[in-house]
Amino acid sequence: MRLSRVRFVLIETSLSANVGAVARALKTMGLTQLVLVRPQQRLDAEAMARAAGADDLLARARICDSLAEALAGCRLVIGSSARARALSWPEVDPAGCAEQLLRDAEEGDVALLLGRERSGLTNDELSYCHFLTRIATNPDYSSLNIAAAAQVFAYELRRTALQWQGDGSLAGEPEGDAQVERSDLATADEMMSFYGHLERTLGQIGFADPAQSSTLRRRLRRLFNRARPDRTELNILRGILSAAAGRKRPERFQR
Amino acid sequence: MRLSRVRFVLIETSLSANVGAVARALKTMGLTQLVLVRPQQRLDAEAMARAAGADDLLARARICDSLAEALAGCRLVIGSSARARALSWPEVDPAGCAEQLLRDAEEGDVALLLGRERSGLTNDELSYCHFLTRIATNPDYSSLNIAAAAQVFAYELRRTALQWQGDGSLAGEPEGDAQVERSDLATADEMMSFYGHLERTLGQIGFADPAQSSTLRRRLRRLFNRARPDRTELNILRGILSAAAGRKRPERFQR
Repeated sequence: MRLSRVRFVLIETSLSANVGAVARALKTMGLTQLVLVRPQQRLDAEAMARAAGADDLLARARICDSLAEALAGCRLVIGSSARARALSWPEVDPAGCAEQLLRDAEEGDVALLLGRERSGLTNDELSYCHFLTRIATNPDYSSLNIAAAAQVFAYELRRTALQWQGDGSLAGEPEGDAQVERSDLATADEMMSFYGHLERTLGQIGFADPAQSSTLRRRLRRLFNRARPDRTELNILRGILSAAAGRKRPERFQR
Repeated sequence: MRLSRVRFVLIETSLSANVGAVARALKTMGLTQLVLVRPQQRLDAEAMARAAGADDLLARARICDSLAEALAGCRLVIGSSARARALSWPEVDPAGCAEQLLRDAEEGDVALLLGRERSGLTNDELSYCHFLTRIATNPDYSSLNIAAAAQVFAYELRRTALQWQGDGSLAGEPEGDAQVERSDLATADEMMSFYGHLERTLGQIGFADPAQSSTLRRRLRRLFNRARPDRTELNILRGILSAAAGRKRPERFQR
Protein backbone atom coordinates (compact mmCIF):
# COMPACT_ATOMS: atom_id res chain seq x y z
CA MET A 1 0.00 0.00 0.00
CA ARG A 2 1.21 3.46 -0.88
CA LEU A 3 0.88 4.79 2.66
CA SER A 4 3.75 2.58 3.74
CA ARG A 5 6.02 4.41 1.31
CA VAL A 6 5.53 7.80 2.91
CA ARG A 7 8.27 8.83 5.35
CA PHE A 8 7.56 11.43 7.98
CA VAL A 9 10.89 13.11 8.62
CA LEU A 10 11.17 15.20 11.80
CA ILE A 11 14.12 17.56 12.04
CA GLU A 12 15.74 18.35 15.39
CA THR A 13 12.59 17.99 17.46
CA SER A 14 13.27 19.39 20.91
CA LEU A 15 10.71 17.39 22.91
CA SER A 16 10.57 13.61 22.96
CA ALA A 17 6.91 13.80 24.00
CA ASN A 18 6.16 15.37 20.63
CA VAL A 19 7.91 12.54 18.82
CA GLY A 20 5.80 10.05 20.73
CA ALA A 21 2.62 11.92 19.82
CA VAL A 22 3.65 12.00 16.16
CA ALA A 23 4.18 8.22 16.23
CA ARG A 24 0.65 7.78 17.56
CA ALA A 25 -0.76 10.15 14.92
CA LEU A 26 0.97 8.20 12.15
CA LYS A 27 -0.10 4.78 13.33
CA THR A 28 -3.78 5.74 13.68
CA MET A 29 -3.69 6.68 9.99
CA GLY A 30 -1.90 3.53 8.86
CA LEU A 31 1.47 5.17 8.23
CA THR A 32 4.58 3.28 9.26
CA GLN A 33 7.76 5.24 8.54
CA LEU A 34 9.09 7.71 11.08
CA VAL A 35 12.56 9.17 10.58
CA LEU A 36 14.25 11.48 13.06
CA VAL A 37 17.08 13.81 12.13
CA ARG A 38 19.20 14.74 15.14
CA PRO A 39 16.44 14.59 17.78
CA GLN A 40 17.34 16.84 20.71
CA GLN A 41 16.04 14.47 23.38
CA ARG A 42 16.40 10.72 23.72
CA LEU A 43 13.30 8.64 23.12
CA ASP A 44 12.49 8.26 26.80
CA ALA A 45 9.58 7.04 28.86
CA GLU A 46 7.67 10.25 28.17
CA ALA A 47 7.91 9.61 24.43
CA MET A 48 6.72 6.03 24.90
CA ALA A 49 3.83 7.17 27.07
CA ARG A 50 2.65 9.67 24.48
CA ALA A 51 3.02 7.10 21.72
CA ALA A 52 0.57 4.90 23.62
CA GLY A 53 0.02 1.77 21.51
CA ALA A 54 2.26 3.16 18.76
CA ASP A 55 5.41 2.44 20.74
CA ASP A 56 6.37 -0.20 18.17
CA LEU A 57 6.42 2.41 15.43
CA LEU A 58 8.45 4.69 17.70
CA ALA A 59 10.91 1.94 18.51
CA ARG A 60 11.41 1.31 14.80
CA ALA A 61 11.98 5.00 14.04
CA ARG A 62 15.19 5.53 12.09
CA ILE A 63 17.56 8.09 13.57
CA CYS A 64 19.81 9.98 11.15
CA ASP A 65 22.63 12.47 11.46
CA SER A 66 21.74 14.35 8.35
CA LEU A 67 18.71 15.24 6.29
CA ALA A 68 20.44 13.81 3.22
CA GLU A 69 20.67 10.43 4.92
CA ALA A 70 17.03 10.62 5.98
CA LEU A 71 15.88 11.36 2.46
CA ALA A 72 18.04 8.80 0.67
CA GLY A 73 16.00 7.01 -1.95
CA CYS A 74 13.05 9.40 -1.86
CA ARG A 75 11.70 10.51 -5.22
CA LEU A 76 9.56 13.35 -3.91
CA VAL A 77 10.06 15.60 -0.88
CA ILE A 78 7.49 18.04 0.47
CA GLY A 79 8.35 20.40 3.31
CA SER A 80 5.86 21.63 5.86
CA SER A 81 6.19 25.28 6.64
CA ALA A 82 4.36 27.33 9.22
CA ARG A 83 5.30 30.69 7.84
CA ALA A 84 5.23 32.32 4.44
CA ARG A 85 8.67 32.39 2.86
CA ALA A 86 10.61 35.29 1.45
CA LEU A 87 11.81 32.90 -1.20
CA SER A 88 8.64 31.69 -2.82
CA TRP A 89 8.34 27.99 -3.48
CA PRO A 90 5.74 25.90 -5.26
CA GLU A 91 3.08 25.40 -2.67
CA VAL A 92 0.35 22.83 -2.16
CA ASP A 93 -2.31 22.67 0.52
CA PRO A 94 -2.47 19.57 2.74
CA ALA A 95 -4.93 17.83 0.41
CA GLY A 96 -2.70 18.58 -2.57
CA CYS A 97 0.29 17.42 -0.56
CA ALA A 98 -1.39 14.08 0.07
CA GLU A 99 -2.20 13.69 -3.61
CA GLN A 100 1.34 14.50 -4.74
CA LEU A 101 2.91 12.14 -2.22
CA LEU A 102 0.58 9.24 -2.96
CA ARG A 103 0.82 9.67 -6.72
CA ASP A 104 4.59 9.38 -6.52
CA ALA A 105 4.47 6.63 -3.91
CA GLU A 106 3.32 4.28 -6.61
CA GLU A 107 6.89 4.25 -7.84
CA GLY A 108 8.90 4.47 -4.63
CA ASP A 109 9.47 6.24 -1.33
CA VAL A 110 8.43 9.84 -0.73
CA ALA A 111 8.92 12.15 2.26
CA LEU A 112 7.18 14.84 4.20
CA LEU A 113 9.51 17.07 6.26
CA LEU A 114 8.41 18.60 9.52
CA GLY A 115 10.76 21.19 10.91
CA ARG A 116 11.75 22.21 14.39
CA GLU A 117 8.96 23.06 16.82
CA ARG A 118 10.01 26.70 17.05
CA SER A 119 11.87 27.62 13.91
CA GLY A 120 10.71 25.29 11.16
CA LEU A 121 12.95 24.50 8.20
CA THR A 122 16.15 26.30 7.27
CA ASN A 123 16.64 27.50 3.71
CA ASP A 124 19.13 24.72 3.16
CA GLU A 125 16.60 22.11 4.25
CA LEU A 126 14.00 23.83 2.10
CA SER A 127 16.21 23.27 -0.91
CA TYR A 128 15.54 19.53 -0.71
CA CYS A 129 11.83 20.12 -1.19
CA HIS A 130 9.87 19.87 -4.40
CA PHE A 131 6.97 21.62 -2.79
CA LEU A 132 6.09 23.38 0.39
CA THR A 133 2.83 22.73 2.15
CA ARG A 134 1.08 24.76 4.77
CA ILE A 135 -1.94 24.21 6.97
CA ALA A 136 -4.08 27.34 6.83
CA THR A 137 -4.15 28.54 10.42
CA ASN A 138 -5.77 31.38 12.31
CA PRO A 139 -3.62 34.42 11.44
CA ASP A 140 -3.89 35.56 15.06
CA TYR A 141 -2.65 32.25 16.44
CA SER A 142 -0.84 29.89 14.14
CA SER A 143 0.97 27.86 16.81
CA LEU A 144 0.14 24.37 15.64
CA ASN A 145 1.73 21.66 17.74
CA ILE A 146 4.02 19.46 15.61
CA ALA A 147 2.03 16.33 16.45
CA ALA A 148 -1.20 18.15 15.59
CA ALA A 149 0.29 19.13 12.23
CA ALA A 150 1.45 15.55 11.67
CA GLN A 151 -2.07 14.38 12.48
CA VAL A 152 -3.58 16.66 9.85
CA PHE A 153 -1.15 15.56 7.13
CA ALA A 154 -1.50 11.90 8.06
CA TYR A 155 -5.28 12.27 8.04
CA GLU A 156 -5.20 13.81 4.56
CA LEU A 157 -2.97 11.00 3.33
CA ARG A 158 -5.28 8.31 4.63
CA ARG A 159 -8.38 10.11 3.39
CA THR A 160 -6.92 10.41 -0.10
CA ALA A 161 -5.64 6.83 -0.14
CA LEU A 162 -9.05 5.48 0.84
CA GLN A 163 -10.74 7.67 -1.73
CA TRP A 164 -8.52 6.38 -4.50
CA GLN A 165 -9.04 2.82 -3.38
CA GLY A 166 -12.76 3.46 -3.37
CA ASP A 167 -13.20 4.71 -6.91
CA GLY A 168 -9.98 3.68 -8.55
CA SER A 169 -9.47 7.13 -9.98
CA LEU A 170 -8.33 10.51 -8.79
CA ALA A 171 -11.84 11.85 -8.85
CA GLY A 172 -12.91 12.64 -5.33
CA GLU A 173 -16.06 11.14 -4.05
CA PRO A 174 -18.78 13.69 -3.57
CA GLU A 175 -18.52 14.78 0.02
CA GLY A 176 -21.08 15.68 2.55
CA ASP A 177 -23.91 13.52 1.41
CA ALA A 178 -25.34 12.80 4.77
CA GLN A 179 -27.72 10.05 3.78
CA VAL A 180 -26.71 6.70 5.17
CA GLU A 181 -27.38 3.59 3.25
CA ARG A 182 -30.78 2.67 4.62
CA SER A 183 -32.46 -0.45 3.56
CA ASP A 184 -36.08 -1.39 4.00
CA LEU A 185 -37.44 2.13 3.64
CA ALA A 186 -41.19 2.37 3.63
CA THR A 187 -42.60 2.53 0.13
CA ALA A 188 -44.83 5.30 -1.16
CA ASP A 189 -47.95 3.20 -0.75
CA GLU A 190 -47.02 2.26 2.81
CA MET A 191 -46.49 5.94 3.56
CA MET A 192 -49.89 6.79 2.13
CA SER A 193 -51.52 4.14 4.21
CA PHE A 194 -49.73 5.53 7.27
CA TYR A 195 -50.94 9.06 6.47
CA GLY A 196 -54.48 7.78 6.23
CA HIS A 197 -54.11 6.18 9.64
CA LEU A 198 -52.54 9.34 11.08
CA GLU A 199 -55.29 11.57 9.78
CA ARG A 200 -58.11 9.34 11.01
CA THR A 201 -56.47 9.25 14.42
CA LEU A 202 -56.19 13.02 14.60
CA GLY A 203 -59.93 13.16 14.16
CA GLN A 204 -60.54 10.47 16.75
CA ILE A 205 -58.44 12.12 19.44
CA GLY A 206 -60.10 15.44 18.73
CA PHE A 207 -56.97 17.23 17.58
CA ALA A 208 -58.29 18.26 14.23
CA ASP A 209 -60.37 17.18 11.34
CA PRO A 210 -57.67 16.91 8.72
CA ALA A 211 -60.23 16.87 5.96
CA GLN A 212 -60.84 20.46 6.91
CA SER A 213 -57.21 21.44 7.15
CA SER A 214 -55.18 20.66 4.10
CA THR A 215 -52.37 22.84 5.46
CA LEU A 216 -52.00 20.64 8.52
CA ARG A 217 -52.09 17.54 6.38
CA ARG A 218 -49.39 18.84 4.07
CA ARG A 219 -47.22 19.91 6.98
CA LEU A 220 -47.36 16.51 8.61
CA ARG A 221 -46.66 14.69 5.38
CA ARG A 222 -43.72 16.91 4.64
CA LEU A 223 -42.35 16.28 8.13
CA PHE A 224 -42.58 12.50 7.93
CA ASN A 225 -41.39 12.39 4.34
CA ARG A 226 -38.27 14.19 5.43
CA ALA A 227 -37.61 11.54 8.06
CA ARG A 228 -37.96 8.75 5.48
CA PRO A 229 -39.04 6.06 7.95
CA ASP A 230 -38.20 2.44 7.41
CA ARG A 231 -40.80 -0.27 7.90
CA THR A 232 -39.96 -0.91 11.53
CA GLU A 233 -40.31 2.75 12.36
CA LEU A 234 -43.58 2.95 10.49
CA ASN A 235 -44.90 0.02 12.52
CA ILE A 236 -43.93 1.78 15.74
CA LEU A 237 -45.69 4.96 14.64
CA ARG A 238 -48.80 3.03 13.68
CA GLY A 239 -48.73 1.26 17.02
CA ILE A 240 -48.68 4.63 18.76
CA LEU A 241 -51.61 5.82 16.66
CA SER A 242 -53.60 2.72 17.52
CA ALA A 243 -52.86 3.17 21.21
CA ALA A 244 -53.93 6.81 21.08
CA ALA A 245 -57.15 6.02 19.24
CA GLY A 246 -57.82 2.91 21.24
CA ARG A 247 -58.52 5.01 24.29
CA LYS A 248 -61.85 5.77 22.70
CA ARG A 249 -63.07 2.21 22.63
CA PRO A 250 -63.89 1.79 26.32
CA GLU A 251 -66.12 4.87 26.14
CA ARG A 252 -68.01 3.46 23.21
CA PHE A 253 -68.51 0.18 24.93
CA GLN A 254 -69.78 1.97 27.99
CA ARG A 255 -72.53 3.62 26.03
CA MET B 1 -18.15 34.29 10.98
CA ARG B 2 -19.67 30.86 11.03
CA LEU B 3 -16.72 29.22 12.79
CA SER B 4 -17.53 31.17 15.92
CA ARG B 5 -20.93 29.47 16.08
CA VAL B 6 -19.48 25.98 16.32
CA ARG B 7 -19.30 24.60 19.87
CA PHE B 8 -16.87 21.82 20.65
CA VAL B 9 -18.47 19.93 23.52
CA LEU B 10 -16.22 17.53 25.46
CA ILE B 11 -17.91 15.03 27.71
CA GLU B 12 -16.27 13.88 30.94
CA THR B 13 -12.71 14.19 29.71
CA SER B 14 -10.46 12.45 32.20
CA LEU B 15 -7.23 14.38 31.58
CA SER B 16 -6.93 18.14 31.87
CA ALA B 17 -3.88 18.01 29.56
CA ASN B 18 -6.15 16.80 26.79
CA VAL B 19 -8.54 19.68 27.35
CA GLY B 20 -5.63 22.11 27.05
CA ALA B 21 -4.47 20.48 23.83
CA VAL B 22 -8.01 20.68 22.43
CA ALA B 23 -8.11 24.41 23.23
CA ARG B 24 -4.90 24.89 21.29
CA ALA B 25 -6.21 22.85 18.36
CA LEU B 26 -9.37 24.97 18.23
CA LYS B 27 -7.63 28.31 18.43
CA THR B 28 -5.16 27.50 15.64
CA MET B 29 -8.17 26.89 13.42
CA GLY B 30 -10.03 30.05 14.45
CA LEU B 31 -12.65 28.31 16.56
CA THR B 32 -13.67 29.93 19.82
CA GLN B 33 -16.27 27.90 21.69
CA LEU B 34 -15.16 25.15 24.06
CA VAL B 35 -17.75 23.59 26.38
CA LEU B 36 -16.93 20.97 28.99
CA VAL B 37 -19.50 18.62 30.46
CA ARG B 38 -18.43 17.31 33.87
CA PRO B 39 -14.65 17.35 33.28
CA GLN B 40 -13.00 14.80 35.54
CA GLN B 41 -9.97 16.96 36.36
CA ARG B 42 -9.74 20.64 37.22
CA LEU B 43 -8.23 22.91 34.59
CA ASP B 44 -4.82 22.98 36.21
CA ALA B 45 -1.34 24.14 35.26
CA GLU B 46 -0.88 21.10 33.02
CA ALA B 47 -3.96 22.08 31.02
CA MET B 48 -2.71 25.65 30.70
CA ALA B 49 0.72 24.46 29.60
CA ARG B 50 -0.73 22.27 26.87
CA ALA B 51 -3.03 25.06 25.73
CA ALA B 52 0.09 27.19 25.17
CA GLY B 53 -1.11 30.51 23.74
CA ALA B 54 -4.70 29.29 23.71
CA ASP B 55 -5.03 29.69 27.46
CA ASP B 56 -7.55 32.50 26.94
CA LEU B 57 -9.84 30.13 25.06
CA LEU B 58 -9.38 27.56 27.81
CA ALA B 59 -10.13 30.11 30.53
CA ARG B 60 -13.35 31.05 28.74
CA ALA B 61 -14.46 27.41 28.40
CA ARG B 62 -17.98 26.92 29.68
CA ILE B 63 -18.37 24.12 32.22
CA CYS B 64 -21.75 22.39 32.39
CA ASP B 65 -23.34 19.76 34.60
CA SER B 66 -25.33 18.19 31.83
CA LEU B 67 -25.16 17.67 28.12
CA ALA B 68 -28.60 19.26 27.80
CA GLU B 69 -27.22 22.45 29.30
CA ALA B 70 -24.19 22.36 27.01
CA LEU B 71 -26.37 22.00 23.93
CA ALA B 72 -29.04 24.55 24.82
CA GLY B 73 -29.81 26.68 21.78
CA CYS B 74 -28.01 24.45 19.27
CA ARG B 75 -29.87 23.69 16.05
CA LEU B 76 -27.61 20.88 14.88
CA VAL B 77 -25.63 18.34 16.89
CA ILE B 78 -23.06 15.94 15.45
CA GLY B 79 -21.43 13.29 17.62
CA SER B 80 -17.96 11.94 17.06
CA SER B 81 -17.78 8.20 17.44
CA ALA B 82 -14.76 5.96 17.35
CA ARG B 83 -16.66 2.72 16.99
CA ALA B 84 -19.39 1.40 14.78
CA ARG B 85 -22.75 1.29 16.52
CA ALA B 86 -25.23 -1.50 16.89
CA LEU B 87 -28.06 0.91 16.22
CA SER B 88 -27.06 2.62 13.02
CA TRP B 89 -27.24 6.37 12.88
CA PRO B 90 -26.90 8.74 9.92
CA GLU B 91 -23.19 9.14 9.41
CA VAL B 92 -21.00 11.78 7.77
CA ASP B 93 -17.25 11.81 7.27
CA PRO B 94 -15.26 14.70 8.79
CA ALA B 95 -15.51 16.76 5.60
CA GLY B 96 -19.25 16.20 5.48
CA CYS B 97 -19.42 17.01 9.17
CA ALA B 98 -17.76 20.37 8.55
CA GLU B 99 -20.15 21.13 5.72
CA GLN B 100 -23.23 20.26 7.73
CA LEU B 101 -22.11 22.27 10.73
CA LEU B 102 -21.15 25.34 8.72
CA ARG B 103 -24.27 25.25 6.61
CA ASP B 104 -26.41 25.32 9.73
CA ALA B 105 -24.16 27.81 11.50
CA GLU B 106 -25.51 30.48 9.20
CA GLU B 107 -28.68 30.44 11.28
CA GLY B 108 -27.41 29.78 14.79
CA ASP B 109 -25.22 27.71 17.05
CA VAL B 110 -24.25 24.14 16.25
CA ALA B 111 -22.28 21.55 18.21
CA LEU B 112 -19.77 18.78 17.75
CA LEU B 113 -19.68 16.27 20.62
CA LEU B 114 -16.49 14.50 21.58
CA GLY B 115 -16.94 11.69 24.07
CA ARG B 116 -14.81 10.30 26.85
CA GLU B 117 -11.23 9.36 26.00
CA ARG B 118 -11.83 5.68 26.62
CA SER B 119 -15.47 4.97 26.14
CA GLY B 120 -16.88 7.59 23.76
CA LEU B 121 -20.54 8.55 23.84
CA THR B 122 -23.30 6.71 25.67
CA ASN B 123 -26.45 5.78 23.83
CA ASP B 124 -28.32 8.48 25.72
CA GLU B 125 -25.81 11.09 24.59
CA LEU B 126 -26.04 9.71 21.09
CA SER B 127 -29.76 10.41 21.07
CA TYR B 128 -29.04 14.14 21.01
CA CYS B 129 -27.21 13.78 17.71
CA HIS B 130 -28.54 14.37 14.22
CA PHE B 131 -25.49 12.71 12.74
CA LEU B 132 -22.50 10.71 13.79
CA THR B 133 -19.10 11.37 12.34
CA ARG B 134 -16.04 9.17 12.34
CA ILE B 135 -12.44 9.67 11.31
CA ALA B 136 -11.39 6.68 9.23
CA THR B 137 -8.55 5.16 11.22
CA ASN B 138 -6.21 2.25 10.81
CA PRO B 139 -8.33 -0.79 11.70
CA ASP B 140 -5.36 -2.27 13.56
CA TYR B 141 -4.86 0.82 15.70
CA SER B 142 -7.66 3.31 15.96
CA SER B 143 -6.56 4.98 19.20
CA LEU B 144 -6.84 8.59 18.16
CA ASN B 145 -6.03 11.02 20.95
CA ILE B 146 -9.01 13.30 21.68
CA ALA B 147 -6.97 16.44 20.90
CA ALA B 148 -5.78 14.85 17.65
CA ALA B 149 -9.39 14.13 16.72
CA ALA B 150 -10.38 17.69 17.64
CA GLN B 151 -7.54 18.94 15.44
CA VAL B 152 -8.80 16.99 12.45
CA PHE B 153 -12.39 18.21 12.86
CA ALA B 154 -11.24 21.79 13.47
CA TYR B 155 -9.00 21.62 10.43
CA GLU B 156 -11.86 20.40 8.25
CA LEU B 157 -14.07 23.20 9.54
CA ARG B 158 -11.52 25.88 8.73
CA ARG B 159 -10.69 24.33 5.38
CA THR B 160 -14.36 24.28 4.40
CA ALA B 161 -15.00 27.80 5.71
CA LEU B 162 -12.07 29.19 3.73
CA GLN B 163 -13.15 27.30 0.63
CA TRP B 164 -16.62 28.77 0.80
CA GLN B 165 -15.20 32.23 1.40
CA GLY B 166 -12.77 31.79 -1.47
CA ASP B 167 -15.49 30.82 -3.89
CA GLY B 168 -17.19 34.10 -3.14
CA SER B 169 -20.59 32.63 -2.57
CA LEU B 170 -21.46 29.36 -0.98
CA ALA B 171 -20.57 27.72 -4.27
CA GLY B 172 -18.53 25.25 -2.25
CA GLU B 173 -21.69 23.93 -0.72
CA PRO B 174 -22.80 20.70 -2.27
CA GLU B 175 -25.76 21.29 -4.54
CA GLY B 176 -28.56 20.46 -2.22
CA ASP B 177 -30.90 18.03 -3.83
CA ALA B 178 -33.14 17.76 -0.84
CA GLN B 179 -31.52 20.59 1.08
CA VAL B 180 -34.02 23.37 1.44
CA GLU B 181 -33.25 26.55 3.29
CA ARG B 182 -34.99 25.96 6.58
CA SER B 183 -34.97 28.58 9.26
CA ASP B 184 -36.39 28.38 12.75
CA LEU B 185 -35.37 24.79 13.38
CA ALA B 186 -36.06 23.48 16.85
CA THR B 187 -33.03 23.64 19.11
CA ALA B 188 -31.53 20.73 21.05
CA ASP B 189 -33.24 21.75 24.27
CA GLU B 190 -36.60 22.12 22.53
CA MET B 191 -36.17 18.67 21.00
CA MET B 192 -35.33 17.19 24.40
CA SER B 193 -38.39 18.78 25.90
CA PHE B 194 -40.45 17.33 23.05
CA TYR B 195 -38.99 13.87 23.64
CA GLY B 196 -39.90 14.14 27.31
CA HIS B 197 -43.46 15.00 26.31
CA LEU B 198 -43.57 12.19 23.74
CA GLU B 199 -42.32 9.60 26.19
CA ARG B 200 -44.74 10.64 28.95
CA THR B 201 -47.58 10.47 26.47
CA LEU B 202 -46.62 6.97 25.34
CA GLY B 203 -47.00 5.92 28.95
CA GLN B 204 -50.31 7.71 29.35
CA ILE B 205 -51.89 6.17 26.27
CA GLY B 206 -50.67 2.76 27.31
CA PHE B 207 -48.42 2.21 24.32
CA ALA B 208 -45.26 1.61 26.26
CA ASP B 209 -43.34 2.64 29.28
CA PRO B 210 -40.36 4.21 27.56
CA ALA B 211 -38.37 4.10 30.77
CA GLN B 212 -38.42 0.36 30.25
CA SER B 213 -37.50 0.44 26.60
CA SER B 214 -34.41 2.40 25.78
CA THR B 215 -34.40 0.88 22.29
CA LEU B 216 -37.82 2.32 21.56
CA ARG B 217 -36.75 5.69 22.93
CA ARG B 218 -33.62 5.74 20.79
CA ARG B 219 -35.54 4.68 17.71
CA LEU B 220 -38.07 7.45 18.09
CA ARG B 221 -35.41 10.05 18.77
CA ARG B 222 -33.45 8.96 15.75
CA LEU B 223 -36.57 9.18 13.59
CA PHE B 224 -37.50 12.69 14.69
CA ASN B 225 -33.89 13.88 14.66
CA ARG B 226 -33.75 12.85 11.06
CA ALA B 227 -36.81 14.93 10.25
CA ARG B 228 -35.30 18.01 11.92
CA PRO B 229 -38.60 19.68 12.77
CA ASP B 230 -38.93 23.44 12.87
CA ARG B 231 -40.72 25.14 15.74
CA THR B 232 -44.11 25.18 14.06
CA GLU B 233 -43.92 21.48 13.37
CA LEU B 234 -42.85 20.79 16.91
CA ASN B 235 -45.85 22.73 18.17
CA ILE B 236 -48.15 20.65 15.99
CA LEU B 237 -46.60 17.44 17.26
CA ARG B 238 -46.93 18.57 20.85
CA GLY B 239 -50.52 19.55 20.21
CA ILE B 240 -51.18 16.04 18.95
CA LEU B 241 -49.56 14.55 22.04
CA SER B 242 -51.66 16.73 24.32
CA ALA B 243 -54.81 15.75 22.48
CA ALA B 244 -53.90 12.06 22.75
CA ALA B 245 -53.17 12.29 26.46
CA GLY B 246 -55.98 14.73 27.12
CA ARG B 247 -58.57 12.10 26.27
CA LYS B 248 -58.13 10.93 29.80
CA ARG B 249 -59.57 14.11 31.25
CA PRO B 250 -63.23 13.73 30.27
CA GLU B 251 -63.28 10.27 31.80
CA ARG B 252 -61.97 11.67 35.03
CA PHE B 253 -64.57 14.39 35.07
CA GLN B 254 -67.33 11.89 34.47
CA ARG B 255 -66.47 10.01 37.57
